[in-house]
Amino acid sequence: MLADLRIPVVVAPMAGGASTPELVTAVGAAGGFGFLAAGYLSAEAVAGHLAKTRELGPHPFGVNLFVPGPESAADLRGYAASLRAEADRYAVALGDPRWEDDDYAAKLDLVVRERVPVVSFTFGCPEPAVVRRLRDNGIQVVVTVTTPAEARIAVDAGADVLCVQGADAGAHRGLFVDDGSPAGGPSYGLLTALRLVLEAVDVPVIATGGLMHGADIAAVLTAGAVAAQLGTAFLRCPEAGTAAVHREALAGDRPTEFTRAFTGRPARGLVNRFLVEHSADAPSAYPQLHHLTKPLRAAANRAGDPEATSLWAGQAYSLCRDLPAAELLARLDGEARDAVSRARRRWP
Amino acid sequence: MLADLRIPVVVAPMAGGASTPELVTAVGAAGGFGFLAAGYLSAEAVAGHLAKTRELGPHPFGVNLFVPGPESAADLRGYAASLRAEADRYAVALGDPRWEDDDYAAKLDLVVRERVPVVSFTFGCPEPAVVRRLRDNGIQVVVTVTTPAEARIAVDAGADVLCVQGADAGAHRGLFVDDGSPAGGPSYGLLTALRLVLEAVDVPVIATGGLMHGADIAAVLTAGAVAAQLGTAFLRCPEAGTAAVHREALAGDRPTEFTRAFTGRPARGLVNRFLVEHSADAPSAYPQLHHLTKPLRAAANRAGDPEATSLWAGQAYSLCRDLPAAELLARLDGEARDAVSRARRRWP
Repeated sequence: MLADLRIPVVVAPMAGGASTPELVTAVGAAGGFGFLAAGYLSAEAVAGHLAKTRELGPHPFGVNLFVPGPESAADLRGYAASLRAEADRYAVALGDPRWEDDDYAAKLDLVVRERVPVVSFTFGCPEPAVVRRLRDNGIQVVVTVTTPAEARIAVDAGADVLCVQGADAGAHRGLFVDDGSPAGGPSYGLLTALRLVLEAVDVPVIATGGLMHGADIAAVLTAGAVAAQLGTAFLRCPEAGTAAVHREALAGDRPTEFTRAFTGRPARGLVNRFLVEHSADAPSAYPQLHHLTKPLRAAANRAGDPEATSLWAGQAYSLCRDLPAAELLARLDGEARDAVSRARRRWP
Repeated sequence: MLADLRIPVVVAPMAGGASTPELVTAVGAAGGFGFLAAGYLSAEAVAGHLAKTRELGPHPFGVNLFVPGPESAADLRGYAASLRAEADRYAVALGDPRWEDDDYAAKLDLVVRERVPVVSFTFGCPEPAVVRRLRDNGIQVVVTVTTPAEARIAVDAGADVLCVQGADAGAHRGLFVDDGSPAGGPSYGLLTALRLVLEAVDVPVIATGGLMHGADIAAVLTAGAVAAQLGTAFLRCPEAGTAAVHREALAGDRPTEFTRAFTGRPARGLVNRFLVEHSADAPSAYPQLHHLTKPLRAAANRAGDPEATSLWAGQAYSLCRDLPAAELLARLDGEARDAVSRARRRWP
């Protein structure tokens, strides 16, 4: 399904509110493919998004699940203590830094029950039995990988398709394991990650990370991907549920950096005060830090303050376009076509 | 000239011995374009390489110069002291960690006198007067950049062509200024760097960093580059002057990392003992550290020991092919052609 889209553009699952049923539907209607983001939500909430998406239109779409990891042994008291001044500043109590599994089993039951056509996974590789169960139910299984080693694991587990994420990507890195280094693991730019994965395995591959222009979509398909996945590029679409402060910050000129400060896993976001002041202290402890900082981020968002909330963005975010999703897709497709024509003149 | 090569592949200047007149000639004869690497050599030695290259064949080629930077104020005594055990181990004296300007003025005189058709610069932007002098003498000026900000500076200085280097690239990053962070500055994967530069300026752009396969050459041309520059991909060619230990290590499976430990500027190389033990302590002080560690590296090379010499490699080095340069170029061109055909089927 993902290998023969009318427009080979997948809109990334963006957990936390950006990926709405409206965005997914607009993308599907225009010839691309959208993902609902199940991460952070209860299975019931995901069921609601699913129902709403089906109500909006008949277009196929996917659902993305977070694969739960082991509970970090890190002592979180020091980090929590370092955030007390933030809590005072925003007049909220810090959240309870609990580990939980993101309602994984219930969400798996849901996507099987609902026969979602495509399910993608992030933060790890689903067990082979999980992959088998989905495939037995006619569901195409996509696993997000960042290295050729992860690609081999995913293919061994039975994945139909891989989504190769370059370090240029915004938001969380899909690393199976966060190794505690600033980037959490090997940092390949998209084109290099794609090449190494294509050489390592023999399944269709979606390319993601930093893609903002149709010529770059054509480039990754030329390199060998079957589709390009874009997240940041769609954050300013009116159909996206992007928070107002986030949407506005994307029109600015902050640099991007990796940080664990908001969630406990490395993610790329626009540099703001919170990221600068807390990245160095933040332990690798997902989703505990997500829960710990959630009230702070919510308060900053309510206050219209961009300095204490996560402003996820890929490295080329400055090329974000403020366009309806269908129009953006059409422009991307036109740019891709022009780019391929140019390459044809070179190799006729 | 660089925008209409028969095969749009530039072989990167690889200072330290890899870029030989034989490699440059073989590449030019086969329809690509080669660069002599003037860095580290005296102007007299470069004149010798130039003469030899012209003697070997009539093909146009370029010369790459290092732009001298300011002398670092770092105190080098601590780092030198930390290398004393290495000096004992390899039974050599450490080099004199002196700053010098790589014989820049004499090399500029040389390339003007010899009317080298293309001169590229690395580690900074030549002064506008230097660019003007070269252009007035019919020389095409290429400046290596790693960010859109550097691209604007280079175009303002009069550069004809930019060479955009992604963080996936092997060896030294072309950063104008090393900011002291592990990567020395913003780390863009090639495709993202290329897009941001293409949006920022309006001159022809060569893309470099991690390119090993013809499909990736086609990809960067599809994205908008006029040529692809490859370095690591040619290190195992018989015409390259790659040191034996380096050549052998490229057939292994070490990871790559950035390090200043060998030269004082961030460069990507295969992880070995020296890199692991000294990267954290190495100050930003180029070319002082180059001179300091030179006897160690030479001794390790003589001993056939890969653990104390720089083993520069791009992130996709595992795809190095052990082929004569002309055959490698022909294969890359064939792969590029196949890749463009595939993209044409998608956007007919």
